[in-house]
Amino acid sequence: MTDKTNSLEKLEHVAGNGLINRRHLLGLGLSSAGMAVASSVLAADNSLPLEIPRWSRQPGPGASGYGSRSSHTEYMQRTAGNPNPIYPGGGSSRSPLQHLQGTITPNSLHFERHHAGVPDIDPSLHKLVINGLVKQPLVFSYEDLLKYPMVSKIYFLECSGNSGSLWGANAADGSAQSIHGLVSCAEWTGIPLSTLLDEAGVEPQAQWVSAVGADAASMGRSVPLNRAMDDVLVALFQNGEPVRPEQGYPMRLFVPGCEGNISVKWLTQIKLSREPSQFRDETSKYTDTRPDRLSAQFTLPMGTKSLITSPSGQMALERQGVYQVTGIAWSGRGSIRRVEVSADGGQTWADARIESHQSEKALARFRIPWQWSGGSAVLQSRATDSRGNVQPSRSALIAEKGSLGRYHFHGIQSWSVSTSGEVSNVYA
Amino acid sequence: MTDKTNSLEKLEHVAGNGLINRRHLLGLGLSSAGMAVASSVLAADNSLPLEIPRWSRQPGPGASGYGSRSSHTEYMQRTAGNPNPIYPGGGSSRSPLQHLQGTITPNSLHFERHHAGVPDIDPSLHKLVINGLVKQPLVFSYEDLLKYPMVSKIYFLECSGNSGSLWGANAADGSAQSIHGLVSCAEWTGIPLSTLLDEAGVEPQAQWVSAVGADAASMGRSVPLNRAMDDVLVALFQNGEPVRPEQGYPMRLFVPGCEGNISVKWLTQIKLSREPSQFRDETSKYTDTRPDRLSAQFTLPMGTKSLITSPSGQMALERQGVYQVTGIAWSGRGSIRRVEVSADGGQTWADARIESHQSEKALARFRIPWQWSGGSAVLQSRATDSRGNVQPSRSALIAEKGSLGRYHFHGIQSWSVSTSGEVSNVYA
Repeated sequence: MTDKTNSLEKLEHVAGNGLINRRHLLGLGLSSAGMAVASSVLAADNSLPLEIPRWSRQPGPGASGYGSRSSHTEYMQRTAGNPNPIYPGGGSSRSPLQHLQGTITPNSLHFERHHAGVPDIDPSLHKLVINGLVKQPLVFSYEDLLKYPMVSKIYFLECSGNSGSLWGANAADGSAQSIHGLVSCAEWTGIPLSTLLDEAGVEPQAQWVSAVGADAASMGRSVPLNRAMDDVLVALFQNGEPVRPEQGYPMRLFVPGCEGNISVKWLTQIKLSREPSQFRDETSKYTDTRPDRLSAQFTLPMGTKSLITSPSGQMALERQGVYQVTGIAWSGRGSIRRVEVSADGGQTWADARIESHQSEKALARFRIPWQWSGGSAVLQSRATDSRGNVQPSRSALIAEKGSLGRYHFHGIQSWSVSTSGEVSNVYA
Repeated sequence: MTDKTNSLEKLEHVAGNGLINRRHLLGLGLSSAGMAVASSVLAADNSLPLEIPRWSRQPGPGASGYGSRSSHTEYMQRTAGNPNPIYPGGGSSRSPLQHLQGTITPNSLHFERHHAGVPDIDPSLHKLVINGLVKQPLVFSYEDLLKYPMVSKIYFLECSGNSGSLWGANAADGSAQSIHGLVSCAEWTGIPLSTLLDEAGVEPQAQWVSAVGADAASMGRSVPLNRAMDDVLVALFQNGEPVRPEQGYPMRLFVPGCEGNISVKWLTQIKLSREPSQFRDETSKYTDTRPDRLSAQFTLPMGTKSLITSPSGQMALERQGVYQVTGIAWSGRGSIRRVEVSADGGQTWADARIESHQSEKALARFRIPWQWSGGSAVLQSRATDSRGNVQPSRSALIAEKGSLGRYHFHGIQSWSVSTSGEVSNVYA
């Protein structure tokens, strides 16, 4: 048997308050319960000892056309706000980040944000118009677009209002889901918008692209032409299957790395113009109010950001010992190069390992082991992207931007661990 | 308006029978229908002209806890064989490859293969035993395993019986789904098996790892220890959420790059031994019969392979013009470095573009434009992996392996296009 006490004394600490070197994962007694059971249930001759469970005794149902998840995992739900009668269909739902692993969000759990609910679009009747300052206005059916060349890329999508409560003066109670659940990640497949714009022929005086959705809000946003000609897609597929209705079926704009609202869902018009259209959602909302009370528009790219998803707010540590601290990191301007973790509120930091694919404007998954010995702790993570952008502390972000804004919060999240093991959102 | 005839005459051909350079995608009249409509529906002042569809006139339903796909996409189904009364729950279902895009397979459409159906496992009662030639037998609960360090990787999974009908003497009618649909791809998150084996302490005389499932078939397979210590996972998550019941909930073995059957689902035992266990599914089945009628066992890695998914069998080309030839490629021994496409049955080849992430033992998505002028054609694709392995022709594969086997077919797929546009499986 592993001598647990002895092992813990020999740990190599890589930063303060219990962050430990990854090569010390073995023999830490993580499976101590398992070993105790093993002693009692394994037969002396080491043969298969377990009582045969009921599901091993008779065949189960066979293959099916379209699968569903286990009933034991149905606790994983997006959380949606209460319906607002004066804003029918509006609102959002948040991904259960504290329960998800890896970097891909299953389509059924991808966060949502709607301004007039989810339209039920018949793709055979849907049109995409390209007009305005173009040599040849074009109208495309869904079938037309399926004939175009497409690319497939893994990208995160984040609402600019994500984590917005952290601009507030007091740290509110919340979970990874309730505070940060407006970010998800999928493989998006679509037609480069530049392909369609080249076909229409952009007039030289055009500087902006306005995108309008077919929902009842006529959601519209303006995209600078140089960005529209870069990596923007008209996305038709999400994780291999057609884009979900909640995500814009049959097609959405997808502007990688930028605030989610600009990736206009249920896309029905692209109009080229000299100036931005000044849509409702880029004047009354989705602007960043500065300390002088003027508001900056078109602050599109999302910041370099990370978040510990476990342990996280409203969880409880039930035993002392070693935990896997894990979370997600992303940047609207590049890929994630580094994630550091602190267990002492930012006094000392250690590098976490990135244990997933790492690509431009996609989520990355990080991990580092941490030994909790029953004391209080403040867990933080800090991301650095491939351009050298470093995630700021909350106080540094507010010192730079003020605290009148509601959008683009990307400061460091602090989770406090109490001596009783309760994890909660704090400002530190 | 684009002069379609004129443009087509200027195409730069990159291989015989219509394969064209990608930079010629514009102005080919792909949106000719769109342009014709555009002339009639766009208002003279270029303002938004479309009749307002019904779904834009009133708000739709708001956000939800767990999303579902559009009713317009429900034609995408896995196809399952007929139930067999003497083999209850056994069988498979195939992914609709001809409808999917990108590389990630949504969990509900991931192919299945069951030997006694899908057990309904309560994770709180499930155990994973590690025993046999180990210093310390271990038993893990699901909760125990969630505490271990995990990695997240995008990997394909392919049944060794996939494409097996192509060993037959006559080319049977079929689609990409019916012939090749036993391959899918997901992001798998799990614990390196080496971590758990190191904790148990492998005895020096151990050479094999036997994995057994909790289904009523007690599906068992033997894995060489050196492979088990490499990149093998005990997978707990699939595309971010817990592994689906059909894929082994609450846990499965995942052996990257190897025939799917060895990635034992509903994993309940890992036993270390000197010799392989000679389970039913590595003696009576899942062996490769050679021309001398002896059968090779443990031919685990899947070959370097590709497949055009569109156009593909049982589709029909409805117009002459330019098509996007697209498909998937993979290798059990590395990443995909190159995919070539031929439209003349392999006489001439052109490089397709790989338009997706490319990582080890994962699907890649390729595309190349092709101009169909109404003549007959035979479309083929040929993959090369990062180790230089080149996908063989069907005849070369059979010359090497014989045609008594049922597994590991990875020869080139030929789709014939008739002068009437019908696409069908042929040997060429």
